[in-house]
Amino acid sequence: MIKTAIIGASGYTGLELVKLISNHPKASLEAVTSNSYQGKSFTDIYPSMRGFESLVCTPFDAKTLSGNVDVAFLALPHKVSMAFAPQLLDQGIKVIDLSADFRFEDLKTYEAVYQPHTAPELLEESVYGLCEISREKIRKARIIGNPGCYPTSILLPMVPLLKEKLISPQGLVSDSKSGVSGAGRALSLTTHFCEVNESFGPYKVGNHRHTPEINEVLSIAAEQAVSLTFVPHLVPVTRGMVSTIYAQIRKGVDEKQIRDAFHRWYENEPFIRILPGGKYPNMSHIKGTNCCDIGFHLEPDSGRLIVVSAIDNLLKGAAGQAVQNMNIMFSIDEKTGLDWVQTPL
Amino acid sequence: MIKTAIIGASGYTGLELVKLISNHPKASLEAVTSNSYQGKSFTDIYPSMRGFESLVCTPFDAKTLSGNVDVAFLALPHKVSMAFAPQLLDQGIKVIDLSADFRFEDLKTYEAVYQPHTAPELLEESVYGLCEISREKIRKARIIGNPGCYPTSILLPMVPLLKEKLISPQGLVSDSKSGVSGAGRALSLTTHFCEVNESFGPYKVGNHRHTPEINEVLSIAAEQAVSLTFVPHLVPVTRGMVSTIYAQIRKGVDEKQIRDAFHRWYENEPFIRILPGGKYPNMSHIKGTNCCDIGFHLEPDSGRLIVVSAIDNLLKGAAGQAVQNMNIMFSIDEKTGLDWVQTPL
Amino acid sequence: MIKTAIIGASGYTGLELVKLISNHPKASLEAVTSNSYQGKSFTDIYPSMRGFESLVCTPFDAKTLSGNVDVAFLALPHKVSMAFAPQLLDQGIKVIDLSADFRFEDLKTYEAVYQPHTAPELLEESVYGLCEISREKIRKARIIGNPGCYPTSILLPMVPLLKEKLISPQGLVSDSKSGVSGAGRALSLTTHFCEVNESFGPYKVGNHRHTPEINEVLSIAAEQAVSLTFVPHLVPVTRGMVSTIYAQIRKGVDEKQIRDAFHRWYENEPFIRILPGGKYPNMSHIKGTNCCDIGFHLEPDSGRLIVVSAIDNLLKGAAGQAVQNMNIMFSIDEKTGLDWVQTPL
Amino acid sequence: MIKTAIIGASGYTGLELVKLISNHPKASLEAVTSNSYQGKSFTDIYPSMRGFESLVCTPFDAKTLSGNVDVAFLALPHKVSMAFAPQLLDQGIKVIDLSADFRFEDLKTYEAVYQPHTAPELLEESVYGLCEISREKIRKARIIGNPGCYPTSILLPMVPLLKEKLISPQGLVSDSKSGVSGAGRALSLTTHFCEVNESFGPYKVGNHRHTPEINEVLSIAAEQAVSLTFVPHLVPVTRGMVSTIYAQIRKGVDEKQIRDAFHRWYENEPFIRILPGGKYPNMSHIKGTNCCDIGFHLEPDSGRLIVVSAIDNLLKGAAGQAVQNMNIMFSIDEKTGLDWVQTPL
Repeated sequence: MIKTAIIGASGYTGLELVKLISNHPKASLEAVTSNSYQGKSFTDIYPSMRGFESLVCTPFDAKTLSGNVDVAFLALPHKVSMAFAPQLLDQGIKVIDLSADFRFEDLKTYEAVYQPHTAPELLEESVYGLCEISREKIRKARIIGNPGCYPTSILLPMVPLLKEKLISPQGLVSDSKSGVSGAGRALSLTTHFCEVNESFGPYKVGNHRHTPEINEVLSIAAEQAVSLTFVPHLVPVTRGMVSTIYAQIRKGVDEKQIRDAFHRWYENEPFIRILPGGKYPNMSHIKGTNCCDIGFHLEPDSGRLIVVSAIDNLLKGAAGQAVQNMNIMFSIDEKTGLDWVQTPL
Repeated sequence: MIKTAIIGASGYTGLELVKLISNHPKASLEAVTSNSYQGKSFTDIYPSMRGFESLVCTPFDAKTLSGNVDVAFLALPHKVSMAFAPQLLDQGIKVIDLSADFRFEDLKTYEAVYQPHTAPELLEESVYGLCEISREKIRKARIIGNPGCYPTSILLPMVPLLKEKLISPQGLVSDSKSGVSGAGRALSLTTHFCEVNESFGPYKVGNHRHTPEINEVLSIAAEQAVSLTFVPHLVPVTRGMVSTIYAQIRKGVDEKQIRDAFHRWYENEPFIRILPGGKYPNMSHIKGTNCCDIGFHLEPDSGRLIVVSAIDNLLKGAAGQAVQNMNIMFSIDEKTGLDWVQTPL
Repeated sequence: MIKTAIIGASGYTGLELVKLISNHPKASLEAVTSNSYQGKSFTDIYPSMRGFESLVCTPFDAKTLSGNVDVAFLALPHKVSMAFAPQLLDQGIKVIDLSADFRFEDLKTYEAVYQPHTAPELLEESVYGLCEISREKIRKARIIGNPGCYPTSILLPMVPLLKEKLISPQGLVSDSKSGVSGAGRALSLTTHFCEVNESFGPYKVGNHRHTPEINEVLSIAAEQAVSLTFVPHLVPVTRGMVSTIYAQIRKGVDEKQIRDAFHRWYENEPFIRILPGGKYPNMSHIKGTNCCDIGFHLEPDSGRLIVVSAIDNLLKGAAGQAVQNMNIMFSIDEKTGLDWVQTPL
Repeated sequence: MIKTAIIGASGYTGLELVKLISNHPKASLEAVTSNSYQGKSFTDIYPSMRGFESLVCTPFDAKTLSGNVDVAFLALPHKVSMAFAPQLLDQGIKVIDLSADFRFEDLKTYEAVYQPHTAPELLEESVYGLCEISREKIRKARIIGNPGCYPTSILLPMVPLLKEKLISPQGLVSDSKSGVSGAGRALSLTTHFCEVNESFGPYKVGNHRHTPEINEVLSIAAEQAVSLTFVPHLVPVTRGMVSTIYAQIRKGVDEKQIRDAFHRWYENEPFIRILPGGKYPNMSHIKGTNCCDIGFHLEPDSGRLIVVSAIDNLLKGAAGQAVQNMNIMFSIDEKTGLDWVQTPL
């Protein structure tokens, strides 16, 4: 049994982690911490969990977790994570961090986008937890930077195409759409029901913090600097994410080569589903699963490739991938605790 | 391993059954039948199931199921069920019928509300599968009439109060609200997106077919004829059901007696959650679970009791209760395969 | 031209008033005030109004309005209204107050529900602005307490039935459902998108502040104390309100008498639509209009009368009725500026 | 008074036209025709219109309209329009057709996308009714092909940029998103509530019929063949449309030139709103208006221009633009009957 703790359990990602670990046959939930709700039962925050979980939220304290916990999930805002992670590692507790604090290879990029880093040596040690791409490194890691939701939806289809040199690294565009849960549980006018309901539009055009995270990984794959044009949009649904990605194929590349590459990379991956020609992903197909669906269309005359990917932003885009990372780190079957479709309709 | 078949698997209740059985550790899915989709893969109907289920829909034929199947779930329209059920029983296959065909004690009531019954002897044999109320009969049954969603939401809180003679059997009102999935997958203007979205209102006022089903069970509990005023409403959400029930307490009854009764009946029931004072059920708390939440408020001066119950119409109101019935019939732990919260937000 | 000002224009009711007055052929908008947005253009708050309204929000100052404004709409929280209203009246500006501050006949009831009243003499003078019921008093009023949304939806159908002694004043129940805009624009977890979306449930069971407002008016109509059981519910839509009301008819009363009474009271009222038998109101039918739709069903055996009413909570339940009150006070055609259906679907 | 008829009034576009004409101060509605609802009151189809419109649907007959009607709006499926239009013109009735039948310059393109044209000479005569672009031709036209919703949202921002040679005609991409009302009122599984609600995804990738309509107009503007990559997506809201368009600027072009061009073309246009830098369109800002909002961002290094436009698919994308065309054809103020914001939230 892998003993786990969820640090910062009161947000939506925390809730997902609680559910996943509660149902996980080879992991147990030893502690949930929350600063704002300390001393409260977890079911006071989320009444849906009445009868399924009886833990009380405690304040964070690495020492009390010591010895009782093998791995901690950090569902915290960035900046808080980088303060907590070293304390946990010092107690011999592995860390899977869902903030941005341990996602970057390059310290300068991180600091340009976020703020000064207080644990730069851990940034160097940490592994970017995109499971299907970095499995071998994850297996040996003490600390994982769990990928952002938008990056996951874009990198899973794009890394193979760049690595295999099937598309041009120039002129990439991702027009991405996210459900509202991606904005978390903190109150704001942009997530106030009457403002979001029956609305749709782009936000943070040209300056979303996920762009440098995406570009760093794409550039490594392409072996040259890649600068993706990224425009996120907010869809008035609770969960789900779709990225419609536009790329230019390299000369001579045809549809079969694209399909073959996807199959080579992903046909044995339980959570990647390559759709047949003429079929495209939809939020409703992946909601409640840890899957990433990928479909594509090649415009024959223009050489324009349209790749569509879909994930559940709270699962494959956050808590699901975090549990998948745990499974890899502890050498158990990667599908354990993730092998179902939760949301029926 | 309990070997099951789902007859009429292409509707929303069928989908729920497929998911529940696919995840059930002590049951296997041997066949899915569908007339409209025969020869098609189940994942062609529901792409969310890609990678999780590989069955192909076959036409219904009781003989081919013989020997391979212990129990069949009938997710069929009424009238079709009463034709299929005898064929299955003849092959030694137990039947859990989700239509109205085997729910009534009284043949005349059934025939007044629906149509002539072609298997009246089975109607007599069948057990009304309200698990928490009729567990002992269910245990021995060959054929179950799985309760309707509205009846489940009303009977679970009302049967104890009537049996314990805490409320008057006169003047009962249930103002009930259902998500749209209750109307099924058949196309109609009333479930066309632009007609339902951002709308709300009552329907079938004074003539919903669930009223006689409810009254029959309430009358048995009260040992006198009960005639509930029932007004269903359609809420523009996919899943969930809330019933706000108004009753008059009998003289001298106080809040504590109500609470005690609920606890006596339900405190060891894993799927009934009696809420503390001042807390009320909400669709968001029960969605994706097999639970029925019950909360109540007693107006001290008027003696008016307000009871609120909530269920997931597709789970405790249909497929979840059907699986719970199967677990009872086959003497396994009643929670098996139902012990989680599916939909996180 | 009636010169108007909207005091507290930044909330949803304020927005509705701005739109109604902007389109009103016999009224002009001279000022919009807002404390939180002073100095900002109204279109910075509501970009939908770009090109349609160019006013800048000013802080409230009764003296600067003096001479330029005939009537002020107060779209303020209660307690603030009672401070501002006397200052406006002193400048000869009529007041239509949309808070609860001037709705009650009885000072003690107000103070029990809200707080000490600082302008009790105005409470006495003010007229409860339920247009179809109190038109003659409204015509002569200097200050109007504009009715709450729930009270409007309940009083319009119930006052005639009580006045005409067709129903018993005992045992009245209103099971009411509101869209989320009724909760306003202030941030709270209960109106956070992911908490409300795909949810449904009751709130403030047994203690909603609209209950005493409703009971006061019902008691006057019934000429005896009436104590309605009122249970509000939140529907995940932006606008609209439906009340399903349960009453007991008096002995000997039949359906025709009910229908005749409604027609006698309302057949010449442009904003009350009595539906034919078998038809019931729905949010989608009244959204964007100043109408109140009323339908009913009488259960023949039990004498239980089910009355369903629907209004747009922001129009007939707030800004629309406020403008109708203005039209009455200034002796212009009551339909002016309200004679359309705004929201097409 | 312009006397109008609406042919095919029972669909959503028909409803919008009925509302617009009912509120239009210089136009009257003389007839509404519907094959499926002939003999029925319009309010039987749309109960929201009770009290606002009393017409009864008649079958289509050009001769009975003769003399009573100046202009007919055809809210019909393509193929039906081309049969009805000549009959109306023969009676001296002008035609504004909302189907695709009279939108194309090139007969061959039309026939390749749709079917053989039975009135090719009228196709030649008809004017593509994109008001802000073709106003002078519209003024003199007998028959208008009212633009599609997607084309309107893309052409309004793109025609000026191509005409002014600010962007490259190669490599244009429009990632467009539409509310569900664009799919009309005909029943289908893709617009069934439970299938659309809480979903999001692309459809008709690479083969939507609006693509050739868009390309024809863009090619004229660019004076060379333009082949836009067009991917439409379905958003689970009733109304609204957003197009996020990606283009490459020509060498040396800067942001100011783009902004200046938009202002030159549109600053006096009442229905085009160019947003300031850093602000982007949203469905909630244009819903219920005849406006097209346009915002943009230029990536300095890559020269990638991101243009976002938003319209109400049923108004500027259909019925609103049709009425604007009527206003132009009959030489009245173009804003008449369109000068408001309907939907408040």
